[in-house]
Amino acid sequence: MREITGEHLADLARGAAVLGTGGGGDPYIGRLLAAAALERHGPVPLVSLEELPDDATVLPVAMMGAPTVMVEKLPSIEEVTTAARTLADYLGRELTHIACAEAGGVNSLIPIAAAARLGLPLVDGDGMGRAFPEIQMVLPTLYGVRATPLAIVDEKGNRGVLDTVDNRWAERLARGATVEMGCSAMIASFAMTGAQARDSLVPGTLSLCVELGRLAREARGHADPVDVLVERLRGRRLFDGKVVDVSRRTVTGFARGAARLSGMDGDAGSELVLRFQNEHLVAERDGGVLVSVPDLICALDRESGDAVTTEALRFGQRVAVIAAPADPRWHTPEGLALAGPRYFGYDHDPIRV
Amino acid sequence: MREITGEHLADLARGAAVLGTGGGGDPYIGRLLAAAALERHGPVPLVSLEELPDDATVLPVAMMGAPTVMVEKLPSIEEVTTAARTLADYLGRELTHIACAEAGGVNSLIPIAAAARLGLPLVDGDGMGRAFPEIQMVLPTLYGVRATPLAIVDEKGNRGVLDTVDNRWAERLARGATVEMGCSAMIASFAMTGAQARDSLVPGTLSLCVELGRLAREARGHADPVDVLVERLRGRRLFDGKVVDVSRRTVTGFARGAARLSGMDGDAGSELVLRFQNEHLVAERDGGVLVSVPDLICALDRESGDAVTTEALRFGQRVAVIAAPADPRWHTPEGLALAGPRYFGYDHDPIRV
Repeated sequence: MREITGEHLADLARGAAVLGTGGGGDPYIGRLLAAAALERHGPVPLVSLEELPDDATVLPVAMMGAPTVMVEKLPSIEEVTTAARTLADYLGRELTHIACAEAGGVNSLIPIAAAARLGLPLVDGDGMGRAFPEIQMVLPTLYGVRATPLAIVDEKGNRGVLDTVDNRWAERLARGATVEMGCSAMIASFAMTGAQARDSLVPGTLSLCVELGRLAREARGHADPVDVLVERLRGRRLFDGKVVDVSRRTVTGFARGAARLSGMDGDAGSELVLRFQNEHLVAERDGGVLVSVPDLICALDRESGDAVTTEALRFGQRVAVIAAPADPRWHTPEGLALAGPRYFGYDHDPIRV
Repeated sequence: MREITGEHLADLARGAAVLGTGGGGDPYIGRLLAAAALERHGPVPLVSLEELPDDATVLPVAMMGAPTVMVEKLPSIEEVTTAARTLADYLGRELTHIACAEAGGVNSLIPIAAAARLGLPLVDGDGMGRAFPEIQMVLPTLYGVRATPLAIVDEKGNRGVLDTVDNRWAERLARGATVEMGCSAMIASFAMTGAQARDSLVPGTLSLCVELGRLAREARGHADPVDVLVERLRGRRLFDGKVVDVSRRTVTGFARGAARLSGMDGDAGSELVLRFQNEHLVAERDGGVLVSVPDLICALDRESGDAVTTEALRFGQRVAVIAAPADPRWHTPEGLALAGPRYFGYDHDPIRV
């Protein structure tokens, strides 16, 4: 893929929501935003990590906050471009490329809108290869890339630039600001060189999202879209069931909770519990952990293969829960310290797909 | 007064704590900080509002947070100079003068330390003529001076610059950051021209603090320091009593609470309640409001005339509670909207001294 046009967006949003593992925001909202920007400003050139000049200035942009809130408080392109421009002013450098911090319905699409509006190419990659709830949880952290200076902007026109002693402090101060700003905000963070981006980002994420979306779409009617996605991701179909209970609270700027599924077909008689903080973190079958972070856990609609975000989970939905391996760097000791199950308060080692 | 030397500090801190109306931080801590800075860097020139050049760049600096916390987390000169320099960098302007945002034990002394360290003169004035708990509660707000850009810095090395749509949003976002930073932080805010400072600041605050401290000191042994202070401030001695109960909580970055006093001497048989949020807001005698914000309420040690800050109030202390009129601009409708009793949740008009 050499560029992103309006025609890619439906597939891209569908695929991004799968990698978003329940988080990353509503793919429909992100798609509307990107579609409007591409229509007005034209296609966005897509640049692979290999093509990036060493001295490029790459800036990831993202929406921060609870996806439960994003549904009601729609983001705008102006906020995210203001965040990018505020950071460029602070750095005193011209931006050359926009990037995605994570994969997910909103956070794969907002960078497209920002790149279109700013007239900049987009990097075909992202900081996680999935979605995670906190700022410091990106592979660039493992490579010593600093999250700050970080620009944060809300829809009212409030702006901030943070410069913190480490990436966890960036998360802490930006999260506090996000909560004050109404639980969602736009951020520009982890400005890096082309060389740093090539080392630390996950390559090909946006191409993969488009491919996943296309595979699921083309499978409909003659193959099982869930199985097609599982095969492409070299993952595993964990469980088929009906959502019988969802508890969800918006706390400290996150959507936290759990969903309980009652098994169907081959899983009849069993129960699966999905525990999430914006993203699915742990899948437990009949009390035992089946799969956990950092590997990907996603709930898909059994008919369409569309990902169901954690804020959209509701009683009666029939879903297939799948799991897929994370970028291997997440399974290093440093990666697990950043986003393994113990970081999230689960007292066990990671359970891989 | 043409300059502030180490010899002024004891009187200045004592007087500032009176105008601090229970808030503004521990005068002892502020005094230590200023003494160290004056010893190392020499006296600080004091510039009256009339002398300020119209095109001066005046920057108020202050400590933000709960005074209950400041006692345990000592401020350092480096933090406050970092805040000033961060703001100057952001503005792209050279600072010409430092100023006080408020009067109070820490917040009258920290600007002295900052001015000494930065080699800049200090403005003889402040933004309130007293202390108030929130950022937007300064007279410059009434004159349209913006609180932002605002720099906020903690002792760990975290920094932020905020740019908000109004001064209440500056308070909201800076308060959130202060809480995350451990409930105290250094801020530089309300950068203004010399002309704006002359219009909007309260003139002569630092000279007045030194004079108040000197009067109280000189009175000891042959006159009542409390009465001397009351006379100089054209105030009123409200109540003499013994502290019998103090409830105090550190909530959302403030020290909130109430103190109950049992009357002595002429006030025997009566009870006074002081309600505070960092500063004393309302004094109630036997259930009726005696005096309220925006006028000044201060608890003084009956023997020495030293102000007792709200975080230092404790069972058994014998204090005289005095009140004094605020700068008249606080009694305008705009002033009362900013810091009148209704803003603080009291359902009554201001009760003047």
